[in-house]
Formats: sequence, structure tokens, C-alpha cells
Amino acid sequence: MRFVRFSLNGDEGLAVEDNGALRGLLVSDSDFPGTLDALLAAGGAGLQAAGEALRHGKLISQEAIRHLPPISRASKILCVGLNYRDHSAESGYAQPKYPTVFARFASSLIGHRDEIVRPVASDTLDFEGELVAVIGEGGSKISEQDGLRHVVGYSIFNDGSIREYQHATPQWTIGKNFDSTGAFGPVFVTADELPPGCAGLTLETRLNGQVVQRANIDDMVFGVASLVSILSQTMTLEPGDVIVTGTPAGVGAGRKPPLYMKHGDICEVEIERIGLLVNSIRDEVAAGRAAA
Amino acid sequence: MRFVRFSLNGDEGLAVEDNGALRGLLVSDSDFPGTLDALLAAGGAGLQAAGEALRHGKLISQEAIRHLPPISRASKILCVGLNYRDHSAESGYAQPKYPTVFARFASSLIGHRDEIVRPVASDTLDFEGELVAVIGEGGSKISEQDGLRHVVGYSIFNDGSIREYQHATPQWTIGKNFDSTGAFGPVFVTADELPPGCAGLTLETRLNGQVVQRANIDDMVFGVASLVSILSQTMTLEPGDVIVTGTPAGVGAGRKPPLYMKHGDICEVEIERIGLLVNSIRDEVAAGRAAA
Repeated sequence: MRFVRFSLNGDEGLAVEDNGALRGLLVSDSDFPGTLDALLAAGGAGLQAAGEALRHGKLISQEAIRHLPPISRASKILCVGLNYRDHSAESGYAQPKYPTVFARFASSLIGHRDEIVRPVASDTLDFEGELVAVIGEGGSKISEQDGLRHVVGYSIFNDGSIREYQHATPQWTIGKNFDSTGAFGPVFVTADELPPGCAGLTLETRLNGQVVQRANIDDMVFGVASLVSILSQTMTLEPGDVIVTGTPAGVGAGRKPPLYMKHGDICEVEIERIGLLVNSIRDEVAAGRAAA
Repeated sequence: MRFVRFSLNGDEGLAVEDNGALRGLLVSDSDFPGTLDALLAAGGAGLQAAGEALRHGKLISQEAIRHLPPISRASKILCVGLNYRDHSAESGYAQPKYPTVFARFASSLIGHRDEIVRPVASDTLDFEGELVAVIGEGGSKISEQDGLRHVVGYSIFNDGSIREYQHATPQWTIGKNFDSTGAFGPVFVTADELPPGCAGLTLETRLNGQVVQRANIDDMVFGVASLVSILSQTMTLEPGDVIVTGTPAGVGAGRKPPLYMKHGDICEVEIERIGLLVNSIRDEVAAGRAAA
């Protein structure tokens, strides 16, 4: 099933995509089956029934809604860096033998068609197209063989990065957590609709229509099952935890001259059979200008 | 006011400390005023009334309860590294000109008197005593002058770190997020009970009774007001967000030979006028041994 979280005139809702059309319900509807956050917190077993309920809901106009990040209350958003060899090389890092992990917080997230904001603080706003894996059943010490059993579905991420801040200190956290830089969605696709671990799927990022990243999910150093297993050896994975699996080569900072995103640009991240995440870029309005 | 979150026979409760005694209520009590997570999410204005309600609650035996981390659903746990010059030096880092930030997730947290777990995976479990500042009113682009107005209270943290994993990749996240390594509590003290920004207070960490860290909060490179201001320039701070403000010199990894924590050790972190956080260390039981 393909779930889309949205708001309509300020009311949150959830829909399923069916032959290109959206059908769904608002949180305020009496038969609303629960948000994805709630359905996943309950272990994800209710997703199928929720999808059936939504399929009998209202026809939802793609044009009338605002897309929201599919999941907004994850206990963890674990982002994997340096997970494609060509990207590690272009970033000047030796390929680590263990996953490189940093965090995103929900305050940085936006949905499909929302604007990624280039902060006044820096011109170095970069794109990173990535596959998202979402944990269904939680667990710790999960074997690689069992890894995919704990992944309930997939989505798409544009890990918008302020390179200047990412590299101002030994830790990348700040440069990865500016408000309105993490685009997530539009669709949460349950794992049963996709090849195991998204094997063989193509990821492509386009900036103003020009292909800037193109890779196969099989090129990840640590695949989805491996990430679930390795991470769970150290920390308990919880239902709804989000793993953003890393970006391939082609980022703006790796180019000569660098290709950073600027006001008016359109950035698209597409993963075969999952969907297309589109965001335009706008400059943050400085406080002084806003008041003028 | 001094709030203590606890569980009693499996039921969660909240108490206030009053002349050394605890008085409080269980979540299941009809007059329960709300968890700290809920009170802070609502902006913190209800803390005073909640404290009054708890003060009229039952006498709570310190011996009968299990202490819980004061806050368990923070949208962000922002940990500041390299925030005391002597610790940056002992860790082999040049002092960064900007705060070094990494994340903790709630899955790593434990309470006062819970056991910090030394994982089977590594012998390099280290202590880090730290001051915690908690955001009340959220905001972005907060001035340093206004910074403390957004801090609703303080607590204590032992940022238990698995050094081997912290330094296995360019990012520290994994080494800072092993299950049962982040001790937090026992008390959440509202800001009005303490000097502004905890100025002048002494922080001391003891391992098996021996002082291993001792510093004044004034020695922080970025003080509390400064951290709130700087972080809020990049990301919106939300009610209940937790800032773990960094550790002074004396950590085990900085010693020759290194002094790592091991099974049976007792680690204490004390901050003047806030409280005393005590945890014993135990070895993780390997899966094979547990099954034997």
C-alpha cells in the first residue's frame, strides 16, 4: 500500500494512492484509522486495515492538499553518511568500515512540494537524494538475515545540508538540522510492494531538470538489512524509527566549481517504484527584511 | 521546584522534593497533573500548579521507587561536545569556534540508580558528567540576552560513551547511543531555584568515590544562554528539548593508562544545588550466556 500524509485547510489527514488517485480521511473523521505515527507505534499490524478504511474514504485532490512528512514523531531519525563509495571519495573521506551515523530532528523536516529554505547564514545549501527505510517491529540484536522483517516500508528523502555548518566542527549535526532542509515523502510505501531491501532500484536526483545523482540501491556499502542488523547491535530499534540510508556521488559540494542550491531552483529526488519528491528552494527572509 | 519522575510497582508517577521528602501522585490518580513531558509540551506554565498538586499527594518512599529520566519524549536531545577547553585538549581536538553538537536518542536513557550497561561489544565505557538545560518556551533566532528566558529548568547527565565506537567513524553518534548508557536525573529543578545559567555551580564526577572530574559551570566555552541563542539561529527549539551541555576534563579516555568503567563500579555525578546522580555499572549479559 502507498500512504500519503497531508493537510487540507489545516486539518491533518491520511490517504492511500490507488491508480494515481488519492482516497483518504481526515483525523477529525469518525472512521479515521490513525496516523502513520500511531499505526507504526502499535507495531504496523494495523496498516492493512487502515489502508482498506482509507480506500473507502473521500477522493482527495492532489492540488488542494499540502503534503506532510509521512512520519513526524519518530523516536530516532538515523541518517547514514558515506554509504556509497563514490560519494565518500568525492567528500574526501576514506570509506569507513562501520556505518557513519548522524541524527536529524523532526524540526528540520518538510513535505513534498514544501520549500527547502536556504538560510541567510550560508550559501552552501546542498542536495542529497536518499532512500528511507522505516522500522515496523522493533528489536535489538537483530541478525542481518532477519533485518528486512523489521522494515515495514520505504520512502524518499532529500537530506538538504548546509555544508559550511556541517564542517565547522567535528560533528555534522548542525549543518544537517537547519529548519526546513529535510524533505521527506511524498509516499510511504509498504515493503510488500517493493523488492526486498529495494534491491535493484534506481535513485536519481535532478536539479532544475538536470540529473545530478544517479545510482542503484545495490551500490550502498551497507544495505538495508545490514544497517538494521548493525544498528540494532548497539541500540534498540523502535517502531517508527527512520533510517535515512545515505546519498550517492554527485552532490554539489563535490563538484568543481561547487553547485549549491539557490532561490528558485527545483530539486527532485526519484526512486523507481517508490515515487518522486519535488521541492523548490527559497531564500530565508532575514528578520530585518521581514519587519521592513 | 524540584520534580522527580518515578515508577512504583510499574506505575509511572511524578513527585516534588520538599525538605528531602518526596510527595507525589501516580499517572493513574484522578488528580495527576500531567507528566513533565506533557507539562513542558504545553509550555511549562502549568509547572507551578502541578507542583502544588503533587505537594498535596502521597508521601513517596525513595526506597520503593525506581527513578526514571525526568523527560522521555524530547523532540531533540542535543549534546554539546568539546565545551570545556581542558576536555577538548585531553581529547586531542583543537577548540572549535562553534558548538560541536551530536544527538542522543531516548532509547539510550536510564534513570538515577539504574545500571549503566557495559556492552559485550567493547571495554571502552567512559563517564562524562554534564549539566542539562531544558527548553520551556520554544523559539528560533533567540538572542543571547533572551536565552535564559527559554530555559525552564536543569538536571544532571552522565553521558556514558563507548569510545571505541565513538571514534570508529567520523561521527560519534553510535558510541553515544548504546542502550542504557545515558543516565539522566534524578531531579528536574526549575530555573527559578538556581543562579542564572547555573553560573558558579560546581560539577563533580566520582568513580568509586574518587573524584575524576571537577569543574565550575562558568568554565563552559559556550554557556547556557549562548548555547540556546546559537542553536536557535539554525533550528527551532521546542518545549521540552534537552541540551546536554558538555563535560570537563578528567574522562577515562584522557588518562594514561585509560580509566574505563567496569562491572561493579559506582559512578556519581553531582552538581551543587541540583543533586546527585548515582549509577552502578554492570556488564551486558551476552545472548549466548543468557540462554545458557
